[in-house]
Amino acid sequence: MKFRHLLIAALLFGTHCRAQQDSLMFRKISDEILLRSTCYENLHVLCKTVGHRLAGSAAAAKAVEWGEKAMEATGADKVWLQAADVPHWVRGYENLQLQYGKGKYKSVKMLSLGNSIGTGGKPVTGEVVMVRNFADLNAIPNNEIKGKIVFFDYRFRQDLVNTFQGYGDAVIYRALGPSAAAKKGAIAVIIRSMSTGTDDIPHTGATHYIDSIKAIPAVAVGNFTADTLEAACSSGTVHAKLESNCKMLPELVRSYNVIGEIKGSEHPEDIIVVGGHLDSWDVGEGAHDDGSGCVQSMEVLRTIKALGLHPKCTIRAVLFMNEENGMKGGLAYGDSALAKHEKHILAIESDAGGFSPRGIGLEMPEANKEKIRYFRKLFLPYGVYDFEHEEGGTDISPLAKQHVPLAGLLPDSQRYFDVHHTNNDVFEAVNHRELELGAVALTQLAYLVSEYDIK
Amino acid sequence: MKFRHLLIAALLFGTHCRAQQDSLMFRKISDEILLRSTCYENLHVLCKTVGHRLAGSAAAAKAVEWGEKAMEATGADKVWLQAADVPHWVRGYENLQLQYGKGKYKSVKMLSLGNSIGTGGKPVTGEVVMVRNFADLNAIPNNEIKGKIVFFDYRFRQDLVNTFQGYGDAVIYRALGPSAAAKKGAIAVIIRSMSTGTDDIPHTGATHYIDSIKAIPAVAVGNFTADTLEAACSSGTVHAKLESNCKMLPELVRSYNVIGEIKGSEHPEDIIVVGGHLDSWDVGEGAHDDGSGCVQSMEVLRTIKALGLHPKCTIRAVLFMNEENGMKGGLAYGDSALAKHEKHILAIESDAGGFSPRGIGLEMPEANKEKIRYFRKLFLPYGVYDFEHEEGGTDISPLAKQHVPLAGLLPDSQRYFDVHHTNNDVFEAVNHRELELGAVALTQLAYLVSEYDIK
Repeated sequence: MKFRHLLIAALLFGTHCRAQQDSLMFRKISDEILLRSTCYENLHVLCKTVGHRLAGSAAAAKAVEWGEKAMEATGADKVWLQAADVPHWVRGYENLQLQYGKGKYKSVKMLSLGNSIGTGGKPVTGEVVMVRNFADLNAIPNNEIKGKIVFFDYRFRQDLVNTFQGYGDAVIYRALGPSAAAKKGAIAVIIRSMSTGTDDIPHTGATHYIDSIKAIPAVAVGNFTADTLEAACSSGTVHAKLESNCKMLPELVRSYNVIGEIKGSEHPEDIIVVGGHLDSWDVGEGAHDDGSGCVQSMEVLRTIKALGLHPKCTIRAVLFMNEENGMKGGLAYGDSALAKHEKHILAIESDAGGFSPRGIGLEMPEANKEKIRYFRKLFLPYGVYDFEHEEGGTDISPLAKQHVPLAGLLPDSQRYFDVHHTNNDVFEAVNHRELELGAVALTQLAYLVSEYDIK
Repeated sequence: MKFRHLLIAALLFGTHCRAQQDSLMFRKISDEILLRSTCYENLHVLCKTVGHRLAGSAAAAKAVEWGEKAMEATGADKVWLQAADVPHWVRGYENLQLQYGKGKYKSVKMLSLGNSIGTGGKPVTGEVVMVRNFADLNAIPNNEIKGKIVFFDYRFRQDLVNTFQGYGDAVIYRALGPSAAAKKGAIAVIIRSMSTGTDDIPHTGATHYIDSIKAIPAVAVGNFTADTLEAACSSGTVHAKLESNCKMLPELVRSYNVIGEIKGSEHPEDIIVVGGHLDSWDVGEGAHDDGSGCVQSMEVLRTIKALGLHPKCTIRAVLFMNEENGMKGGLAYGDSALAKHEKHILAIESDAGGFSPRGIGLEMPEANKEKIRYFRKLFLPYGVYDFEHEEGGTDISPLAKQHVPLAGLLPDSQRYFDVHHTNNDVFEAVNHRELELGAVALTQLAYLVSEYDIK
């Protein structure tokens, strides 16, 4: 502990008189973004001219083209594309019908889970077996599951204040439910969406088949349909008929991360990277997830250039490809950093929505955390107070293996899982000031770490 | 200072072992509200069955009826109405047309300011004189203002992170602009709305005529219309034609505050009041302003009853009438408290929107602030970290004259002035979890102050 404190003291020696200067620079950054940001307009263009953009799709390719131009418009010293070969899943036609008792089959709102297989050209029909969780499932004999459709009716925990905790708690049913049910002989899976919404909006998102278990089709329904289905299963028999032709295409598709860089003036070898992911699910417009992180990351470069700053360290913005169903972009970036012996002193990700920032997650050794927390007071006037959570980001996680300290922007989480992976994740769901304040916090953090060469 | 610290030490003596107990109670309150709250449903009913409800209107009377029933449904020990005679302003027909150069007059989106007089049965027509601020206005000779329509083109300061600061900075043009212009001979006033919106939504709100100066009609336009008008005034001549028959009716209308109370089990004479205002402007649905504060305040009582708590002090919820254009409800409550020698140990107001709470404003002597801040850590898991602002609330402000400590809920402010006093302040603009978390913070604060009889 003492050694660590000495380190911090050494780092900060001579910086005391700079506190006011830093505070002024924080204000300049904030003013530049709140008054002259292009990130909201960038998000508008991305959402409305490209729209959703699942990795491997034509729209994702268009997004890369857009991203390259938008990155160049920031005034970055250098802009380039970094290849990544990504999977290409396609949704196609899908229809889920439910039959309550001896009633008629009726279609309900649904979305196949991402990466799901389809029903192979004909409907899959079966009785619905409702389970609340894996314990419920495992308590049922296999012969009572065989040939049936399992409904995972796990409710998103509304009592958790941080909705990402609720998501982390519930998402195992989306990720692992299909294989768990298939192992017991189920022919398809329906899940209650990972959703905080008081509505019937289905939420898609990746499912992960376990190789040794037969893949079965899997879909999500919204909360209202799940409520109705729950009540019906509790009091009688329900049958489901699912038809879908979603599939993972056999070939990988060449795609790209979009990268922009401002070269460091004193320590160009020390790289700070800030990024979001350019791909989205194939619904809505990927506005919060994660158009916001992309336009905010580019805003960091634009702001530095607009203010005429010459950061001591190299600052990079990266629009990662394929976060949603493969992480190939993040892996490619990590591999490249390793191959080129690049020295990243901090990797920052914004992938939790374009909402008012509240904190910065720190996934790094305690000594590094303390160096950043030392500057906590500077962030307070911008509503960023929470530096206590261990949070990085998916795309930057490969860098952790290279011992790069990670940071993740922590916006207010209350509305994220209303729209996450849905048709409602559109530009209109993003507030311009909330989006911009996220960009402010990212720029301030990158500036600080560069200015003090914190590592 | 020392005496103060002694006081705090005395207050907290023996409470150390209670920290965990308090933390558990905070969690119980949060769980009860996030899982079983009725506040979002209450807001839905208020917004959709009553709608907007300006003081004095039939809708306001209906809101009082609704409020009394909703208050009773909380399980409060006692519910009553407290009379307040309120002004009654009516909007009626209104139309603003602008003529750019020698073009045609065209109608634009607009709203008369609240309390404004109308044009007296015929249009008021004149050249538009644009000013940025009062200094601009005062620099223009009276004869260049006389007979003309002044356009106050003061921009809401987007650089201020706390939008209430931006509002406080800009609102003087809405409040005092009309009289200032009339004093120099203007015949009407157009203001740029107090708005953070990137849209054309006009925002109404109270204007205050100075008695000694002739009242002239005053209206607000949205940001897009203001931008166009600004450009046109900068490059040429603009005329405006305003027709409106809004007016303040001559008679006051008998209306009411709605009050519910849970009697204190140990210190019934010590009263904690928490409130919002039931009236709204006559546009939208008054969802954020201030249906949210009303349903949150009632939720405090419902939660206490649902958890079977017996608060030591008396806890009251008040739905105040006429905050928007007269404050007669707040004044009546203050007068009654004085007349009955009631001892309020804390008055809390929620009137800043149903957004995620971030802090609690404290308008009280420093010694009282410190007593509340002592419990700061308990609030942190609920996102409430900021106890540094001097903020109470309009309706509870009369109590300040009786030396009652005031507190104001401080939600995230980024979206409030997109919808404030507009047609867009509707139920759909409120997120259920954000609303509920505000109720959580209010209940936690009331519980704490009651439990420790903090005064």
